[in-house]
Amino acid sequence: MMNDVMSSVFYPRKLAVIGVSEARDNMGKNIVQNLLDHYFQGEVFPVGPKGGKVFGLDIYPSVLDIPNEIDFAAIITPSRTVPELVGQCGRKGAKVIYIATGGFREFKKENVDLEAEILDQARKYNVRLIGPNCIGVINSEIGLCLPFSPLPPLKIGNVSVLSQSGGVANSYLMHLFAENIGVNKWVSMGNKLDLEETDFLPYLIEDPWTHVICIHSEGLKKGKRLLELARSSFKPIILHKVNRFEVTTHVADSHTAAIANDNRIVDAVCRQGPIIRAGTIHEAVSYAKAFLLPRLDGNRLSVISRSGGHSVIATDFCTEYGFEMPPFDCDYLKSVEEFFRAKVVKTSNPLDLGDLWNFEAYRFVLENAIKQDQFDGMLFIFAYNMLQQHDLILNMTTFLSELTKRYNKPIAFVLQGWRERVDKIKDSVPFPIFSEIDEAVKTLSVSLDFHRKKGTI
Amino acid sequence: MMNDVMSSVFYPRKLAVIGVSEARDNMGKNIVQNLLDHYFQGEVFPVGPKGGKVFGLDIYPSVLDIPNEIDFAAIITPSRTVPELVGQCGRKGAKVIYIATGGFREFKKENVDLEAEILDQARKYNVRLIGPNCIGVINSEIGLCLPFSPLPPLKIGNVSVLSQSGGVANSYLMHLFAENIGVNKWVSMGNKLDLEETDFLPYLIEDPWTHVICIHSEGLKKGKRLLELARSSFKPIILHKVNRFEVTTHVADSHTAAIANDNRIVDAVCRQGPIIRAGTIHEAVSYAKAFLLPRLDGNRLSVISRSGGHSVIATDFCTEYGFEMPPFDCDYLKSVEEFFRAKVVKTSNPLDLGDLWNFEAYRFVLENAIKQDQFDGMLFIFAYNMLQQHDLILNMTTFLSELTKRYNKPIAFVLQGWRERVDKIKDSVPFPIFSEIDEAVKTLSVSLDFHRKKGTI
Repeated sequence: MMNDVMSSVFYPRKLAVIGVSEARDNMGKNIVQNLLDHYFQGEVFPVGPKGGKVFGLDIYPSVLDIPNEIDFAAIITPSRTVPELVGQCGRKGAKVIYIATGGFREFKKENVDLEAEILDQARKYNVRLIGPNCIGVINSEIGLCLPFSPLPPLKIGNVSVLSQSGGVANSYLMHLFAENIGVNKWVSMGNKLDLEETDFLPYLIEDPWTHVICIHSEGLKKGKRLLELARSSFKPIILHKVNRFEVTTHVADSHTAAIANDNRIVDAVCRQGPIIRAGTIHEAVSYAKAFLLPRLDGNRLSVISRSGGHSVIATDFCTEYGFEMPPFDCDYLKSVEEFFRAKVVKTSNPLDLGDLWNFEAYRFVLENAIKQDQFDGMLFIFAYNMLQQHDLILNMTTFLSELTKRYNKPIAFVLQGWRERVDKIKDSVPFPIFSEIDEAVKTLSVSLDFHRKKGTI
Repeated sequence: MMNDVMSSVFYPRKLAVIGVSEARDNMGKNIVQNLLDHYFQGEVFPVGPKGGKVFGLDIYPSVLDIPNEIDFAAIITPSRTVPELVGQCGRKGAKVIYIATGGFREFKKENVDLEAEILDQARKYNVRLIGPNCIGVINSEIGLCLPFSPLPPLKIGNVSVLSQSGGVANSYLMHLFAENIGVNKWVSMGNKLDLEETDFLPYLIEDPWTHVICIHSEGLKKGKRLLELARSSFKPIILHKVNRFEVTTHVADSHTAAIANDNRIVDAVCRQGPIIRAGTIHEAVSYAKAFLLPRLDGNRLSVISRSGGHSVIATDFCTEYGFEMPPFDCDYLKSVEEFFRAKVVKTSNPLDLGDLWNFEAYRFVLENAIKQDQFDGMLFIFAYNMLQQHDLILNMTTFLSELTKRYNKPIAFVLQGWRERVDKIKDSVPFPIFSEIDEAVKTLSVSLDFHRKKGTI
């Protein structure tokens, strides 16, 4: 039953967009544009009382005028019109309605009645609701893209996002894409009048295209259910629960009418169950990177760096986060020393490579390090101030990606260079790259902790 | 006396680079190239036993062959040759020598003798030393750029950096430039055989072009002196002290032969005195941003955001870091509401602007907020997923910069958008931009705490 609903949410075939007009700044039109721009694989039916055409498509005066049944409707019309439209969509067979419109309970407490009417209509026709006061759904696989501001091409990947706030949902997209991490499914939940985190979660936990789930929430309605789901899931669930203080609760209430949760209880629930709590979007995206790498099976790391200063910093953070750095094999160190031009660096773990710019040397150094049995994973730090070396770094990044697969061990790769150069590398290789050493080490520790709690190691 | 030395460090006029040859991968040649590429305003004398020419300049076989006196020498030759070269430079009048060469005490304990010989020679001729095992000095004002790998054009600004590690010193440059923050003076101190943090600090504290000082240290030799200097300084000193654990000390010892400090003592010293401790390069650069804004005189902030979700997050962090958000004037809120297309957002502090894209409206909203007496500063969060709006954001950023000056209050500006767009804005306006809300709020709190400790507020 719920699976049918979720199929309609993420794989709709006949989709009505209600509130479309030819006006320049019409937001319904933006939704239609997003669907066309992203090559949505289903049919789109624009609806608006004034009729006309957008992007070559007829605008139907009413949803009832659409010649077919629909399975999904997006509504972006004034709040008072929504209850009736929900009923109409129900009569047309919609399984799910996304209500973009804001100005309900979060704006005026009296609008609770309006919300009740909407719910009545939805129940009457057995329709489920997303929102109101949200920016919809994305499924990058099929070009489903429903926010009402035009989006650039999506990066397709394996991170799925559930976010209460539309603005924050957008920031998740921007943060993930900046790191060249693709999104799979994405829902902005808004006021959560009907569907909420724990309704979408079972589907994402089963979804073969989703490997990591990020949740932004201003108020958890069903904490116990969330915990149960997290316990049943072998996929990491990263919870970015905000609205942590009483002062904030008033602000959240007028944003998405979110309910308050005791922050200590949320923390305790996360600690108990295998839920990873992130403090910021940036942190959630960092953690997601770790789970796009092979599993870390223990706390023993090899640390390889191009600069002694970064080795010192890495040792601090490895120690702080409980990692051990066992010695490299002696024969290995001897072979590595052969590559050095000036014999002025002592070799140990962390291994300081200094002035080495030869890809074949890196191939040798990296592969023969990752394969040593005393290591569960690798921290590799490449800081360079050169403007050249783009090809070396590109080849190396691709090679790191191959190595993680070949040896099924994670390599946390920290790349520091001139901004544009690093971005170019990030955008060229589908391999997670960290900007900061502390970020990489903390992330590895979060991943280790998750797998320990799960009992998978 | 020390001031004379520091004048020679940062404003040398006649500079010898020793260890230069015509060979393709000669590192001394890179130093000469950096000086020419950055339009160094003094004279450069390349020196190397094989003679020849680099970039049209004669290579003198020995420093003694240079027709003039010199005031600064850079040495990048094998370690065993360094003591004699130091003596020769002394005889030619050098006040300061930067020794790039590595492989001293940090490599083999026996090399302590070699270091002692170098010190003897330096004392004999009253020359001061930077390094060994470092990458030199930058003074962006006069094109002094002495690292031995070629650097791109420098951004000139008011942050000065003292770093023990050369690699980390480079990472500071890259982190600062990525945020479009210019560097003024920059020293890589290496093994600190002679000159160290507390020798450079008095000069930077007096230097009119330096507004913020960042120090990366693997071992503080003179903690008390550092504390005294910090107490005497009205400029913020941001200390990035690494080598925090016993495990790390062995690594740091073979990197720069750094001495160990008890991390708790370092923390206590920072808390006592007005020294700002940063845990990472990223954090140090964030903190520097706060001090490029006007001083925050109290803990009362106006918070303005384009998204309710970001307002909720901001309220969490403002509460966590001890800020208050007093209400805006009622008349102001009424005027602001006039700008909204859809009347669906409640106005308060934080003020959620929603769908507002008109520069004149932003002018009004921002200026009339910053001028209200109940606020000491502003947190302004602009998150947008649009590809357009570049001009609006550019104009707004410039206007924010003007406002901070006109009203002498800080505005912490958080900009979240598609990576390339945000970077373009950052590079266009010399105004600090934050990427994350937590970063901005924490940074404001660090700045407030500093000024409270200083008694300036």
